[in-house]
Amino acid sequence: MVENIDLLIVGAGPAGLMAAAWAAVYGIKTKVVDKRTTKIEKGHADGLQSRTIEILHSFGFGDGIYKEANRLQEVCFWNPDGNGVIRRTDRIADTIPKISRFQQSVIHQGRIEQYFLEFVQHPPEVCIDRGVEPAGLEIDKSLIANEDAYPITVTLKRGKEALVDGIGGAEDDSGEESVVGCKYMIGCDGAHSWVREKLGIMMEGAQTESVWGVMDILPITDFPDIRSRCTIHSASAGTIMVIPRERGLVRLYIQLAHLTPARGERFDKSNGSPETIFAAAKRIMAPYDISYNYCEWWTVYQVGQRVANAFAKYDRIFLAGDAVHTHSPKAGQGMNVSMHDSYNLVWKIASVIKRKARPLILSTYATERRAVALQLIEFDRRFSRMFSGRPAKDIADEAGISMEEFKRTFEKGNIFTSGISVKYGTNVLVDSMGKPEVAFRMPFGGLQLGMRFPSSQVACQADATPIQLGDALKSDGLWRLIVFAGEVTQPLAKERLDRLGDALLQPHSFLRRLQQEVTLEPVLVHASSRQSVELFDFPKAFYSKKDGQYDYYRVFADDATYHHGHGNAYSNYGVDKESGCAVLTRPDQYIGWMGEVDDVKGMERYLSAILR
Amino acid sequence: MVENIDLLIVGAGPAGLMAAAWAAVYGIKTKVVDKRTTKIEKGHADGLQSRTIEILHSFGFGDGIYKEANRLQEVCFWNPDGNGVIRRTDRIADTIPKISRFQQSVIHQGRIEQYFLEFVQHPPEVCIDRGVEPAGLEIDKSLIANEDAYPITVTLKRGKEALVDGIGGAEDDSGEESVVGCKYMIGCDGAHSWVREKLGIMMEGAQTESVWGVMDILPITDFPDIRSRCTIHSASAGTIMVIPRERGLVRLYIQLAHLTPARGERFDKSNGSPETIFAAAKRIMAPYDISYNYCEWWTVYQVGQRVANAFAKYDRIFLAGDAVHTHSPKAGQGMNVSMHDSYNLVWKIASVIKRKARPLILSTYATERRAVALQLIEFDRRFSRMFSGRPAKDIADEAGISMEEFKRTFEKGNIFTSGISVKYGTNVLVDSMGKPEVAFRMPFGGLQLGMRFPSSQVACQADATPIQLGDALKSDGLWRLIVFAGEVTQPLAKERLDRLGDALLQPHSFLRRLQQEVTLEPVLVHASSRQSVELFDFPKAFYSKKDGQYDYYRVFADDATYHHGHGNAYSNYGVDKESGCAVLTRPDQYIGWMGEVDDVKGMERYLSAILR
Repeated sequence: MVENIDLLIVGAGPAGLMAAAWAAVYGIKTKVVDKRTTKIEKGHADGLQSRTIEILHSFGFGDGIYKEANRLQEVCFWNPDGNGVIRRTDRIADTIPKISRFQQSVIHQGRIEQYFLEFVQHPPEVCIDRGVEPAGLEIDKSLIANEDAYPITVTLKRGKEALVDGIGGAEDDSGEESVVGCKYMIGCDGAHSWVREKLGIMMEGAQTESVWGVMDILPITDFPDIRSRCTIHSASAGTIMVIPRERGLVRLYIQLAHLTPARGERFDKSNGSPETIFAAAKRIMAPYDISYNYCEWWTVYQVGQRVANAFAKYDRIFLAGDAVHTHSPKAGQGMNVSMHDSYNLVWKIASVIKRKARPLILSTYATERRAVALQLIEFDRRFSRMFSGRPAKDIADEAGISMEEFKRTFEKGNIFTSGISVKYGTNVLVDSMGKPEVAFRMPFGGLQLGMRFPSSQVACQADATPIQLGDALKSDGLWRLIVFAGEVTQPLAKERLDRLGDALLQPHSFLRRLQQEVTLEPVLVHASSRQSVELFDFPKAFYSKKDGQYDYYRVFADDATYHHGHGNAYSNYGVDKESGCAVLTRPDQYIGWMGEVDDVKGMERYLSAILR
Repeated sequence: MVENIDLLIVGAGPAGLMAAAWAAVYGIKTKVVDKRTTKIEKGHADGLQSRTIEILHSFGFGDGIYKEANRLQEVCFWNPDGNGVIRRTDRIADTIPKISRFQQSVIHQGRIEQYFLEFVQHPPEVCIDRGVEPAGLEIDKSLIANEDAYPITVTLKRGKEALVDGIGGAEDDSGEESVVGCKYMIGCDGAHSWVREKLGIMMEGAQTESVWGVMDILPITDFPDIRSRCTIHSASAGTIMVIPRERGLVRLYIQLAHLTPARGERFDKSNGSPETIFAAAKRIMAPYDISYNYCEWWTVYQVGQRVANAFAKYDRIFLAGDAVHTHSPKAGQGMNVSMHDSYNLVWKIASVIKRKARPLILSTYATERRAVALQLIEFDRRFSRMFSGRPAKDIADEAGISMEEFKRTFEKGNIFTSGISVKYGTNVLVDSMGKPEVAFRMPFGGLQLGMRFPSSQVACQADATPIQLGDALKSDGLWRLIVFAGEVTQPLAKERLDRLGDALLQPHSFLRRLQQEVTLEPVLVHASSRQSVELFDFPKAFYSKKDGQYDYYRVFADDATYHHGHGNAYSNYGVDKESGCAVLTRPDQYIGWMGEVDDVKGMERYLSAILR
């Protein structure tokens, strides 16, 4: 018998679980399969970008992870001095100040997965089945245009191992097969993706020669910066990156010059061992001493940079994460960009399944995310080359890397690696037909079309609570109309706002229907003093609720608070207090439209192209 | 058969569970009994003072409660205008700015109890037995001086109700009796305390005539300040206090003039009903309209102020919470002061049981906490009188209350009600023989002997993380030596610190022994720039750990951080950067001794009188 489901997710790693989180939010019938019988308990990915922490926060479980993780503050650069002895030559902030309210952090991948598993455990629509892998894939092309159909048929095969973490059913070693019909499918099945192979999609790019070892240890050392992120370029023994982790652990990325293979060859992994890797670490860190009693995990890898030549087929089957991009792990990007892929994708799929959005939005996944993957690969090529290079002895040493140039590249890379700088180009979901220039360009934290809506503190009109506007933009599937109403005590601003307020109440208006169907939520930030106005002075759409009670947490003042200062939101965002502006954010917090406060036609034109 | 235990706690409300939390931290064999078969699920106490949130935080579960609670920001004063119509006449901060990093918050008592229950569930030493009450108490006076003995024998009787929340064993309606022998016992069994009665301790004080109703509702109202804490004094219909709660609830305290009994009489509770109480609320809030669809809880009470004439017997049996002080609930003090009682008491009992401290410290409980109870009653008398009074029509109206005076009393009361202003007098645990004047008196946030050590942000020397010093002062049973070493790049400061560092390493020193037994933890805050010094420049006692690894989180700089500004700790604390100072904190974060950085003799004299 064929079981019909909305969405099949292959792979229960970070990308697959992020996909499952959206599926849980929207309540679409979803199955996640993973050939592993347990989640990863140690090693592998550990870096969380600022943007990723914002996303986890928007699902409601960012606090716990952020508290548990080690929040990186500082990067220390260690380079050889004139005598070839390593010295600290510089320190910079790890996360660029003001780029986000969260700093880049590190925590073991399994802990992050655990938070996702707890999040998706409750909605009955999402089922995670471990020890199961796909064994056959058929696509009925004649059904692709039919929204009611299940054009994808997948044969699933239960593996021979027992299920051990209590999720997904009882012990089963039958190797039995089952068949699911799916409306949509996502391959989050890693660098050796089975889904990608079945679709005939190819990875493009190459290996480099650079071979690295990784160790997660509890170190004992007189090296003074072991709790800071460090790059240590030794004169000739190679390079180390130090990543201080949670629970006192430290991850070392250690260059293994002796394992470097001939050009075009793969290195022989069996030549690596904790002993040989750590011996290389000791050589690089000399004259400082380092030892350990406990090593939690280690591995050896060869750097390579590859991107898939396509991210989707028929806009019914999609690939995300390592299945479409692989690169060096040192900048802590892999897990993040992978999660961002499925974070970008699955609200779109779910909105189409729920008949809220038009199917044409699905093609934006590949255009938006492949562009990011290509940027990532380009960044990683630059970063890895500088990292693996030997420091230049002097200006004449052309084969060496200038440590000044390395630091500049590193600092510049920090903007990219935060995940904040991603800007999606114009498409049906990112519409430049409004008036995107309503906000002045700010270096950090400003409003920009195609970028995520940044957080800034505002004061709740009803109760004076300091609120991070980012907290109002939850990942709950809602679109948001964020109105910067300006100085509402001024007649012009008041009239402008009232025109919008009237439109939101018009019986046949599209905006009103979206609001009543709980698809669009109006939010207001005014620039008058909080005490000079009352909540009930504002149009009803900004505080009315279906049940006759009022929503007191959608009208905010850009004003000082009693205990947490002034957020200066208008100034951070680059919004003029006189003219104000309106912003439409997608469910993933990216700004899809910007324009005048009372440009109701512009809002409706943008939204009606997407929503139905 | 008699079961011997270290500590019997009667009552599993907030005071009893706070006692159990300490018992769990120290791992003393403890039984908590409560005649209720379940914890309270609605109504009753809801206010959390700043100090209480600090305490919950020090046990590690403050974050969750604080996030869940409604954090109060603003108090609005509503008074009759010349025409007798209520108007907002003033707004002030609810928690006085800078008094604590946490603002007064409200959340249902049952949620707080739930966090405690989860905290004490793991250590096997603490057992919570519901549906059980004490039925007999015998004290063998001949054993009181014997530390190995169990001088208290209590007969426990299982009630007839089933146990329903899964804690404490299977269903049991036998009414069976058991007997426990205890070293210590605490009565946290409320206003009608059985333990108090058995000890022959009396409550002193009186009822007032004022009768009040309380309702927890989801309101529908055009009153603009329903999400702020308000005092509404109507011209002649009585007074309301509005307390906005979590989950959209609002608690109303409503004066019930029509239920006021004759002088010295108790009112007839059966005359109260939600309808009559709410009718009074509508009269007071007119011309604003208020209604509700959902009332979670309501009650009627008569204000009374009473304090027990003793808090302990033989320093073996103690009373805490409502068992020793009762008063009006409107200032949100009851649950807080009750929890602070047992927070003050049980680390002392547990330290004595563990043979870490001398029994003489136990007498400080009654002296320290009875003084606070008397202050509370005095505050409540003033506060209640002003609250229940009719607003004066004009200056000549001597029977009325001046609303200006009310506001001043309220503002002054805010310092007391935060719980921060508690200052214990000199006793064996609060020693003025050091040099307590080493810190200048600051209006808020300064260091003062006998007061709790306030938090301030500092930067971690090892990794630049911004740390709240309050987070370093966990409720883990440790005493802490907090050394403000000053500008350690200056030779004098360095020499002073090195003298202390040497003393901490002396083979036979008392400080070293306490540190090795994990009773005392040295913490250091210096005033030099973080980047001008290295962790390993400091004496080893400040980063050494037993296992040969280093503790990177006990040396801090009063310096700017990359993302969270400068904490200005020395200036907040009133500590001179040149002379510095040393502070000894008790396990409850109260400052027991202050003196010079290198006054090793003074530190040892203070500690050796208490610890053994």
